[in-house]
Amino acid sequence: MHRLHPDRLLPPEPGLRRIARTLYEGIADLPIVSPHGHVEAAWFRDGYRFPDAATLMVAPDHYVLRMLISQGLDYPALGVPGPDGASAGPREVWRTFAGHYPLFRGTPTRLWLDHALHEVLELPEPLLAETAERSFDHIAERLASPEYTPRALYDRFRIEVLASTDAATDTLEHHAAIAEDPWAARIIPTFRPDAVTDPEHEAFAASLATLAEQTGRDVARWPDYLAALQDRRAAFRALGATATDHGVPTPETADLPPETCQSLLTAALAGTLDATGAVHFRAQMLTEMAAMSAEDGLVMQIHAGARRNYAPSIHANHGRDRGFDLPMATDWSAGLKPLLDRLGFAQDLRVVLYTLDEASYGRDLAPLAGAFPTLRLGAPWWFFDSPLGLSRHFEATVETAGFANLAGFVDDTRAFLSIPARHDMYRRAVASFLAGLVARHQLGAAEAAEVAADLAVRNARDTYRLGEPDDA
Amino acid sequence: MHRLHPDRLLPPEPGLRRIARTLYEGIADLPIVSPHGHVEAAWFRDGYRFPDAATLMVAPDHYVLRMLISQGLDYPALGVPGPDGASAGPREVWRTFAGHYPLFRGTPTRLWLDHALHEVLELPEPLLAETAERSFDHIAERLASPEYTPRALYDRFRIEVLASTDAATDTLEHHAAIAEDPWAARIIPTFRPDAVTDPEHEAFAASLATLAEQTGRDVARWPDYLAALQDRRAAFRALGATATDHGVPTPETADLPPETCQSLLTAALAGTLDATGAVHFRAQMLTEMAAMSAEDGLVMQIHAGARRNYAPSIHANHGRDRGFDLPMATDWSAGLKPLLDRLGFAQDLRVVLYTLDEASYGRDLAPLAGAFPTLRLGAPWWFFDSPLGLSRHFEATVETAGFANLAGFVDDTRAFLSIPARHDMYRRAVASFLAGLVARHQLGAAEAAEVAADLAVRNARDTYRLGEPDDA
Amino acid sequence: MHRLHPDRLLPPEPGLRRIARTLYEGIADLPIVSPHGHVEAAWFRDGYRFPDAATLMVAPDHYVLRMLISQGLDYPALGVPGPDGASAGPREVWRTFAGHYPLFRGTPTRLWLDHALHEVLELPEPLLAETAERSFDHIAERLASPEYTPRALYDRFRIEVLASTDAATDTLEHHAAIAEDPWAARIIPTFRPDAVTDPEHEAFAASLATLAEQTGRDVARWPDYLAALQDRRAAFRALGATATDHGVPTPETADLPPETCQSLLTAALAGTLDATGAVHFRAQMLTEMAAMSAEDGLVMQIHAGARRNYAPSIHANHGRDRGFDLPMATDWSAGLKPLLDRLGFAQDLRVVLYTLDEASYGRDLAPLAGAFPTLRLGAPWWFFDSPLGLSRHFEATVETAGFANLAGFVDDTRAFLSIPARHDMYRRAVASFLAGLVARHQLGAAEAAEVAADLAVRNARDTYRLGEPDDA
Repeated sequence: MHRLHPDRLLPPEPGLRRIARTLYEGIADLPIVSPHGHVEAAWFRDGYRFPDAATLMVAPDHYVLRMLISQGLDYPALGVPGPDGASAGPREVWRTFAGHYPLFRGTPTRLWLDHALHEVLELPEPLLAETAERSFDHIAERLASPEYTPRALYDRFRIEVLASTDAATDTLEHHAAIAEDPWAARIIPTFRPDAVTDPEHEAFAASLATLAEQTGRDVARWPDYLAALQDRRAAFRALGATATDHGVPTPETADLPPETCQSLLTAALAGTLDATGAVHFRAQMLTEMAAMSAEDGLVMQIHAGARRNYAPSIHANHGRDRGFDLPMATDWSAGLKPLLDRLGFAQDLRVVLYTLDEASYGRDLAPLAGAFPTLRLGAPWWFFDSPLGLSRHFEATVETAGFANLAGFVDDTRAFLSIPARHDMYRRAVASFLAGLVARHQLGAAEAAEVAADLAVRNARDTYRLGEPDDA
Repeated sequence: MHRLHPDRLLPPEPGLRRIARTLYEGIADLPIVSPHGHVEAAWFRDGYRFPDAATLMVAPDHYVLRMLISQGLDYPALGVPGPDGASAGPREVWRTFAGHYPLFRGTPTRLWLDHALHEVLELPEPLLAETAERSFDHIAERLASPEYTPRALYDRFRIEVLASTDAATDTLEHHAAIAEDPWAARIIPTFRPDAVTDPEHEAFAASLATLAEQTGRDVARWPDYLAALQDRRAAFRALGATATDHGVPTPETADLPPETCQSLLTAALAGTLDATGAVHFRAQMLTEMAAMSAEDGLVMQIHAGARRNYAPSIHANHGRDRGFDLPMATDWSAGLKPLLDRLGFAQDLRVVLYTLDEASYGRDLAPLAGAFPTLRLGAPWWFFDSPLGLSRHFEATVETAGFANLAGFVDDTRAFLSIPARHDMYRRAVASFLAGLVARHQLGAAEAAEVAADLAVRNARDTYRLGEPDDA
Repeated sequence: MHRLHPDRLLPPEPGLRRIARTLYEGIADLPIVSPHGHVEAAWFRDGYRFPDAATLMVAPDHYVLRMLISQGLDYPALGVPGPDGASAGPREVWRTFAGHYPLFRGTPTRLWLDHALHEVLELPEPLLAETAERSFDHIAERLASPEYTPRALYDRFRIEVLASTDAATDTLEHHAAIAEDPWAARIIPTFRPDAVTDPEHEAFAASLATLAEQTGRDVARWPDYLAALQDRRAAFRALGATATDHGVPTPETADLPPETCQSLLTAALAGTLDATGAVHFRAQMLTEMAAMSAEDGLVMQIHAGARRNYAPSIHANHGRDRGFDLPMATDWSAGLKPLLDRLGFAQDLRVVLYTLDEASYGRDLAPLAGAFPTLRLGAPWWFFDSPLGLSRHFEATVETAGFANLAGFVDDTRAFLSIPARHDMYRRAVASFLAGLVARHQLGAAEAAEVAADLAVRNARDTYRLGEPDDA
């Protein structure tokens, strides 16, 4: 057997490690609370089987793609076709991937893959060029067995709740089916309206047409457009949604008069909105979404600061989410001011902030979340969801915001097999950070154990209004 | 007894801790040099007694307020009345505070409070909901005793010098009284002219009227306005002041021709200055203040980068300094250039720079202070005056600026009871950082001990031109 | 003997130190690959002797100068004359320097100087005011001996390749002479065209005139101007150059139509180009240089983000490179976009990015280098080439970019005697960082040893297209 080291990621100094190990053991087996991610609800229909190793783990993972592309491989060799539609077959892709596996040394991708390969898929030997064939076959066998359906893994991973992320106009049929199904799982949708709130989104016009159709509203009129969005939020809530999610280039918000809003909407629908108008539209819509959240209680997530589709040739030839999105510097305090001036103390509003600009942890987000009752600070996102990224996050935020203003962990992943690895990494990072406080006599051991459990599950349940589990 | 751990905040690794403990012991009992803070001189009149625990430690502390507000409490419950003037009584406030004390886990506030409660006030048990009543009474008893007057504590804390921060138009009557008093203490004023140098300050017009009256100058004429400020600086120096302090949103400076300055002043007094004009006015005044410092030798402190009164509803209902001030990104190098082009090498000028933008430590401040003979780098300020904040500060600045260009420590606090805790935290951070250099063989043990004492007291004495103590 | 501690800079915790020491020992004696620096080729003519200690180590080192100036010394006292041409003699300079040596505590300058003094120059006692005279004489004796010529030291340092940095119009006569010489050394030029690509460079007009003369091209015509640059690149390649280097205030690039380029060039030559035009010119030239690199295979280095000659009085009185250059915030992703849109996937292009903005490590550079096959991330530069700077660099970049996208180390120094110290510091930092990964069970010991050798020499050879050494 090839197993991961039981003390991996814990601090090397023996005294610290002892404390960290004890803290980790106290939370290692808690259920997984996953209130934000990109796993597809469709996978949980009865009888669904994952495809082969390469199709499951290489082509859909933009972290994997970007690293291999950066060292000179091309997309078709990784199973991602270009304009001509051709690409290597799964076994060949897997061979390529295995041969380049050393590139992932030192990266969190390596941690997630090692965990998925050896702990979840029980691969008995390291992944190398020489073991590529055997591992491909081993995984094929596992994925074909009933113990490896998404449903079986959901249970094995001890998931308490799993939220998908869905377009505002999604039919949610898979969520409805799961809700009807006797299988006892909690897989809930999240309302992600970017395609209907960002006039520069490529699907804006089509999505608004669908929205009009679904709701019977005249979405060209500003109040009806907002009402249509409220209708869809209600539909999401009916299927268990507790949150919305908003992906925006910047956290700019606005609080404009209705006539201006109507003009922006009219121009957006006519396709005559310029870039500045689009910024205003998105900024206004963040405030509108916050106002609706203050009404209906859906927790609002803002993911700001991604410069998406940076390489036009990659976008044109291979589509979105291929590894060419980049972080940007972000001024949260200036951006959120209009929203917070209006709603910063609204009774039922809760907003969770996710950044790609680590400089904003201590400069903007911890001070904001450490003051406004409506704000919580989200876990490290994307590039920064890593052992050192988590360490920097805690170090930059806790002294200002404390622990109670942290939103807990979200795995935010498309890679279902990596979910346990990601929560495990977070719990080890929590134990390591707290061990430092205990060893420096800033926190008692019992206090630390309580905080560890808060961060591992309770803060996420509370932040996302998921309630306590039935057996709690 | 409930005492703090003697090795708190020191590095956990036994070898490092041994070195750090030795370094710490060498500086732990040095006197406290406090050249910048917000303690009120009025407290040191004979016979003054602190009020109850809540009035002393909760309502006036914006760190405490912000954390409790962020978790849903409101100001009146914390002893801060709103527009209707109502608020909870001290004992009730203390109960609320004690019940929420776990929120401060991991924060420097917790360190300062624990030190004040257990080391200074000798509280024999932890502060909890259950001990709230007893602790309130215990503290009341202590504060009523002669050992707990500000004068008694000043002596007990072994304070060598304590600087308050005072408006340019302050009468300084309490400083004058202390100077006359047989009690041997050095409590000196600091010249903080923001209200007469920032045309957007709410008290600008009134303060200029007072300034005119105090000095007999026609402050509407630019040269007389400057002369009036020089008069006040002289008055401060006569009472022992060695420094000025300037709180500005940005470190922008200017060097404008006198006619332009006169126009700005005229517009400011007429209330017709626009936002850009106000920026120019403040920028010019930083340069003027530096020019005066080069003449009269008052050390100039610049605190730049605070976005104050961010939440208008809090400001309107509860006033300033309630926890809703935020850091901002700051470009020191661009901002200071006009001032430094004119005065960067002026013989007697000394400027100490304080930032709220940690990214500027290594990018701007250490390179500036490591080159200009007129500049010193101030200790971490506000949110960043914390164990990890200090560690980041040393790590980001020492390699570029060395130790001699660091200004030493200032506690910058209103919370008199926390002064020993803050200097102690700084000394432990110094010992910890230096222990790392010793253990990595970058510095000898004797060298490290010398640097430790420099940072603990000598750099502050030298930077602020306080002279050596009589018994040195 | 006064020797440096063999475990210096390695982590203090005994377990980590053991791992780090083993990793370090595996790479400590590898040859020095130095593909970027500022050592002068002229020093390697037969019979050249270094001057005295002060002239060699004080006046030419802007790190040394800045620290001493920051504490009130003046340039003439350090051997740098002002406008009147007067300055202290070498022995007096050395005395001043020795007396202020404690100022360098905690800085990398101290590390390099200690290494040069005690390991290279075999100074038997610490440098202090009291040992100043003896050390000056000791060094004089060493520098006069045949074991201390640049050629002898090149061999003793086990340098595999050493690249100088040379103006586009340099005659390269010293490189040609070394190439002819029977002495077996590889000292190659680097094409640094700033003076002919930056219209704001003080030598722009003169350099373009020289360029025209050298190449016989009409440099006033855009295509001929570019062809003249290609001619010079070919001349550099003929003498072994494998790289170009570009020092720019910002990494802004452009991709303008030829007519616009011609207009910019015409204005630049006429001296009528405004500041915006100069920005466009430099931006376009970065893209042109990249296009030429994609043709001729010269590796393109971009050093961006220095605010040079910040203090006009120092520049006017004492010239360039006197310690008054500062870092600036840098937006690499926005800046490089035009270049990358056109050439980001060009077959033979390789661009190495060097920043002075540490915030850009994780936010821009690691994401860019971890995706584009044409980009590599350069080692920490200037202020950040230090033990903690290296640690922050690895911590901020490896998780996103892996190890293979790091360019390896460049010493980037004018101080030839410090070259072994700098590579040694880097190797110790590599060993320390990798030891952390091994001790946290993220990397196996054999993997770590392989990565250590990659970073110490192989990545630099590969990045700079230097080939394997003959005996490899």
